Amino acid sequence: MLVDKEKSELKQRLKKVSGQINGIDKMLDEGRYCVDILQQILAARAALNKVGLMILESHTRSCVVNAIKEDRTEQGIDELMNVIKQFNK
Amino acid sequence: MLVDKEKSELKQRLKKVSGQINGIDKMLDEGRYCVDILQQILAARAALNKVGLMILESHTRSCVVNAIKEDRTEQGIDELMNVIKQFNK
Amino acid sequence: MLVDKEKSELKQRLKKVSGQINGIDKMLDEGRYCVDILQQILAARAALNKVGLMILESHTRSCVVNAIKEDRTEQGIDELMNVIKQFNK
Amino acid sequence: MLVDKEKSELKQRLKKVSGQINGIDKMLDEGRYCVDILQQILAARAALNKVGLMILESHTRSCVVNAIKEDRTEQGIDELMNVIKQFNK
Repeated sequence: MLVDKEKSELKQRLKKVSGQINGIDKMLDEGRYCVDILQQILAARAALNKVGLMILESHTRSCVVNAIKEDRTEQGIDELMNVIKQFNK
Repeated sequence: MLVDKEKSELKQRLKKVSGQINGIDKMLDEGRYCVDILQQILAARAALNKVGLMILESHTRSCVVNAIKEDRTEQGIDELMNVIKQFNK
Repeated sequence: MLVDKEKSELKQRLKKVSGQINGIDKMLDEGRYCVDILQQILAARAALNKVGLMILESHTRSCVVNAIKEDRTEQGIDELMNVIKQFNK
Repeated sequence: MLVDKEKSELKQRLKKVSGQINGIDKMLDEGRYCVDILQQILAARAALNKVGLMILESHTRSCVVNAIKEDRTEQGIDELMNVIKQFNK
């Protein structure tokens, strides 16, 4: 469960990723050197990954903890492990 | 060196990633379940990674090959390996 | 906390990884083609990653759940998130 | 094509990875804490990845460059991109 403070930080980070994506699009239009474009893609990928890890952490500290405290442990951990494995691909 | 056909496909893919990012932002506003949001982030990350690999491939088939044919081999390969290592992080 | 059954499966998998590493060493001695050697390294890396995910899952289902049930939630989740972030590098 | 100097360094690094794998096996026998075992697995994974990147670099600087200089460009780049994509999984 994301609280408002977390949501606003995440929205800000997503806005930055959107800006990076637009910037990459412009670099394509300007015919910029491939390696320079790749650097921006790697930066956007890292920023997006960070957003994901922040949500994963918030989910773990709230929903997973609640699931365990409310004796829905197996379901909570199954779901968490599934996301962790996808993250690791 | 990206040719026009490559550029237009890449721009389309970037547009899709932008759409995914906007969608994730909306999911935050709607208070959607963390795991559902994470699935979308993983999808956007994979799509962005694909764009990166396409540019890396185009760069390798054009700029790196030219560098080797024009006897700028070391510079061309140094640059390529640097990007490959960053991709692998 | 790994139970015996988990330990024996993990030990078997580690034995296989060791065998793969020895195989790669032999391929180097035999002067095998780089790409063939790389395929074996990628296979060993995937096998090792799988062992890691199995231990991470067992840890989550036991130690982390116990930490939460024994009100050591923050410590248990801090530790888990730290490992997840390292896994994701 | 790996030269002898590269081979001996790679063999040394593989020996170290084997040692790490044996160490992990011992940690299982000793019932060590999961997170400590995971740290060792992540270290072995990183070491193995490094061996892979070293071979990929040597392959790129020798076999791929030769393929391009001997007008087998497409085959050389197809093979390289295939390995890069697998590395990125």
